[in-house]
Amino acid sequence: MQTQPVLINGQWIESTGTQTFQAVNPATAETLEPQFPVSPWDEIESVVQAAAAASKEMRGWTGERFAAFLESYAEEIEKQADALVEAANLETGYPESPRLRDGELPRTTNQLRQAASHAREGSWAQPTIDTGTGIGSLFGPIGPVTVFGPNNFPFAFNSIAGGDFAAAVAAGNPVIAKGHSSHPKTTQIFAEAADAAAKATNMPNGFVQLIYRTSHADGCRLVSHPLMGAIGYTGGRSAGLTIKEAADKAGKPVYLELSSINPVFVLPEALAERSAEIAEEFKGSCLMGTGQFCTNPGLVALKAGAAADTFIEQVKEKFEAAPAGILLGEGVQKGFLSGIAAIQSAGATLVTGGSASDNPGFSCANTLLKVSASQFLENPEALQEEAFGNASLFILANSDEELAQIAECLEGNLTGCIYSHTDGKDDALYDQIAPALRQKVGRLLNDKMPTGVAVSPAMNHGGPFPSTGHPVFTSVGIPAAIHRFSMLQCYDNIRPHRLPESLKPKNPNPDMWRYIDGMYTQSDYDA
Amino acid sequence: MQTQPVLINGQWIESTGTQTFQAVNPATAETLEPQFPVSPWDEIESVVQAAAAASKEMRGWTGERFAAFLESYAEEIEKQADALVEAANLETGYPESPRLRDGELPRTTNQLRQAASHAREGSWAQPTIDTGTGIGSLFGPIGPVTVFGPNNFPFAFNSIAGGDFAAAVAAGNPVIAKGHSSHPKTTQIFAEAADAAAKATNMPNGFVQLIYRTSHADGCRLVSHPLMGAIGYTGGRSAGLTIKEAADKAGKPVYLELSSINPVFVLPEALAERSAEIAEEFKGSCLMGTGQFCTNPGLVALKAGAAADTFIEQVKEKFEAAPAGILLGEGVQKGFLSGIAAIQSAGATLVTGGSASDNPGFSCANTLLKVSASQFLENPEALQEEAFGNASLFILANSDEELAQIAECLEGNLTGCIYSHTDGKDDALYDQIAPALRQKVGRLLNDKMPTGVAVSPAMNHGGPFPSTGHPVFTSVGIPAAIHRFSMLQCYDNIRPHRLPESLKPKNPNPDMWRYIDGMYTQSDYDA
Repeated sequence: MQTQPVLINGQWIESTGTQTFQAVNPATAETLEPQFPVSPWDEIESVVQAAAAASKEMRGWTGERFAAFLESYAEEIEKQADALVEAANLETGYPESPRLRDGELPRTTNQLRQAASHAREGSWAQPTIDTGTGIGSLFGPIGPVTVFGPNNFPFAFNSIAGGDFAAAVAAGNPVIAKGHSSHPKTTQIFAEAADAAAKATNMPNGFVQLIYRTSHADGCRLVSHPLMGAIGYTGGRSAGLTIKEAADKAGKPVYLELSSINPVFVLPEALAERSAEIAEEFKGSCLMGTGQFCTNPGLVALKAGAAADTFIEQVKEKFEAAPAGILLGEGVQKGFLSGIAAIQSAGATLVTGGSASDNPGFSCANTLLKVSASQFLENPEALQEEAFGNASLFILANSDEELAQIAECLEGNLTGCIYSHTDGKDDALYDQIAPALRQKVGRLLNDKMPTGVAVSPAMNHGGPFPSTGHPVFTSVGIPAAIHRFSMLQCYDNIRPHRLPESLKPKNPNPDMWRYIDGMYTQSDYDA
Repeated sequence: MQTQPVLINGQWIESTGTQTFQAVNPATAETLEPQFPVSPWDEIESVVQAAAAASKEMRGWTGERFAAFLESYAEEIEKQADALVEAANLETGYPESPRLRDGELPRTTNQLRQAASHAREGSWAQPTIDTGTGIGSLFGPIGPVTVFGPNNFPFAFNSIAGGDFAAAVAAGNPVIAKGHSSHPKTTQIFAEAADAAAKATNMPNGFVQLIYRTSHADGCRLVSHPLMGAIGYTGGRSAGLTIKEAADKAGKPVYLELSSINPVFVLPEALAERSAEIAEEFKGSCLMGTGQFCTNPGLVALKAGAAADTFIEQVKEKFEAAPAGILLGEGVQKGFLSGIAAIQSAGATLVTGGSASDNPGFSCANTLLKVSASQFLENPEALQEEAFGNASLFILANSDEELAQIAECLEGNLTGCIYSHTDGKDDALYDQIAPALRQKVGRLLNDKMPTGVAVSPAMNHGGPFPSTGHPVFTSVGIPAAIHRFSMLQCYDNIRPHRLPESLKPKNPNPDMWRYIDGMYTQSDYDA
């Protein structure tokens, strides 16, 4: 049987690779047709060359060209909604509704359109002008961007349709998409839509390209290729750190979004006030999508005592009553079980779950563990192991000081949350914990679970290492996410007619903000 | 003889190290008193612990506190001007006037005061608010910052007084300064002034600390310490890449400013128009400070022919007539000569100079080399070797295409410059070269040599690897330089009274710009 073609330099061509792979339906464990190729190095090299040629051809293009593509692409995706939802349902086990059709798909097209709007508007590039010295600067494209998408968001983080893709294109770059092996058909449908949009909007041939899989060694070679501009990676920690090491060594900017256990502190008076309500909210957040969210609350710190015991009991009942969802694949299931085992080896005990469920397909029982704060503080690294899926660990502290110490010894996380009493009865303890937690997380929350990431300018879907590779950047939230795929370009004494339009005296787009002589303005300036 | 003390946790204490070093006067090759210590690991560990404690103590402080320190420090430096100039003159061979007293010193205090002004004003942190979702974000402090200063700017890039120091403090961080071994006395005087200012403004003990030297292994251990926030490094490529590898592995943000050869293209009609004028300008730029600038023009691309020969002859005469300046040390002199030898081995021929001069101290003859474009294009890596000092390489191209190809195969550089005919006669060729050069450099110039880096918001003293470690950031130019030492901090559903002042409805400083619902404004917003 022939394998599916790869998208290289504007053409769907047969891969020269001899190895193939197939997706598996995680709800049934059945292998899905068709077969997809593992691309060999010579094929990858031709992808990079085509991307570099596209990058060269697009030098100096205004944001309008990229905006037109992104908007056309959003429309093409909407035409393929049925096919996308069907493929993703088979490949991920996520329900068609509400998750795929009503949740991720509109979020994906919304991200593309937001990126289009910002590419056209231009403020994201932060045009900065010092009229006294005649110096101007802005953020410009970096060159070919390779995007590695994760398994858990087949649409919104897809390597050829998700947030990194949208941001890389908005910055003016070609994208090499490395599809996730768990949902190749979904990715193929996106790539067909992207290709149609690229042709409709006259983009260069190497502007959007897709390969499905590479060897690990070729993945490292790809990200460290001399012609590579930057890399976006969302996924597991181990593979991510391998990519990071290769990119770092080659001096390539690499933006990672890795694992995170998203600590939640429920303070004593909050528990006394609204234990059942918080238990329900926690259950909803932790089991949503079978816990397969980057912002899944995997660690809950409580003050030990009767209230905590009641809370744990409430959550346990809810976890046992809720259906065990489907995990994304056999690898996820194995990783989940070995994570649970590692947490137990480090001293935690099982409250419920902890083993595979009897469901067909890949599924594990909803799982809770608990450990004392003193044990956690003795072995914090092992007890921060991520068990990606429907599990969470309670930590029981014997004092306020222990709660604060937990915050101090956390690894970097995407989010951290503190629930406190409505009328301020926990405020003194809050003030002990929050400043420490603030430095460990990208997004600090109050009284709200961390799942649910709004795509808006103030969002930070980032955080200190190892939750990401760099704490200055966010992968969600436009315009900030766009910067990652740019370079700062300064113009010193450049003759006026040669300046980019955004730096000329007349503001080419009256909606665009510029930072002129230390003030933000939409006005023109005097030459 | 006792060694000089190190500044740890607010005290000048004797180092426990047994190894010592002394500076050398590069103008005379004489060893200078006194002796300075190499700090052993236990001492470095205590420095990191003290910095982490300071970082913890300063959590939540407003910019005003850091501004007050920076301004007090600038005044303390001015009180020590005579001592600083005298020490730096002995340790670097730079003339007291104009270089040290009238150039670098006021630039340094100006940088500190600019950083103070921005720390107080607050716009650098980019407070961003989405009123619809109740989410806000800003850039906050990252934690202890280690700064490695270079040998070539004893004041303006000094690890305890220069641009990285000012930026790290403005972002709200403690600084661990690792002085450059070539000018320890200068650094000591700065540290005394910094310590006085820190005490006068009630900063924590571990806020500013100084060690003079570490082993290479301990330097790597320092930058990868779990309590480290970020690292700023300015200096040579080899040591910089070692620091980068250690920091990258530990997931620590590391900002490097490394070597750069700063290509200059002089187009044919510009040469026909004003050869003598450009030759004079080039000589001034290339020999300034004995060529020991990060932005020294080390590569000049010309179209081969009679005009190029005349130009080279003009420059050669000027180089031979100009005194051979002093290099910063024996290591710099050796590196310069081995760089020149490597460029010759790669096919270039000597036009003038190329050997040590007869001057006392460390000095080499003003040096020029040349090579054909075809040779350069065959061996571009070896011919982009930096010979740090008073040298430059001419590349002679036989066609417009070859000139453009040179631009395409350049490594990342801080700057790139194109001289063209005043009336546009070179414009077609400019358009072939500039787009390629744009992607290879942080700052593009027209008709002006790259030395001279204005400290203003639009400046970019950065560029693609290997000139720096990340093309999004600049080390000169406030407020942009401050971001490097920060992390993005998002507040989601945080109770209003717990928000940082900058994110509350009322703008605490009417001069501060905030990005609210997609618009820059200095106004308040409705809760």
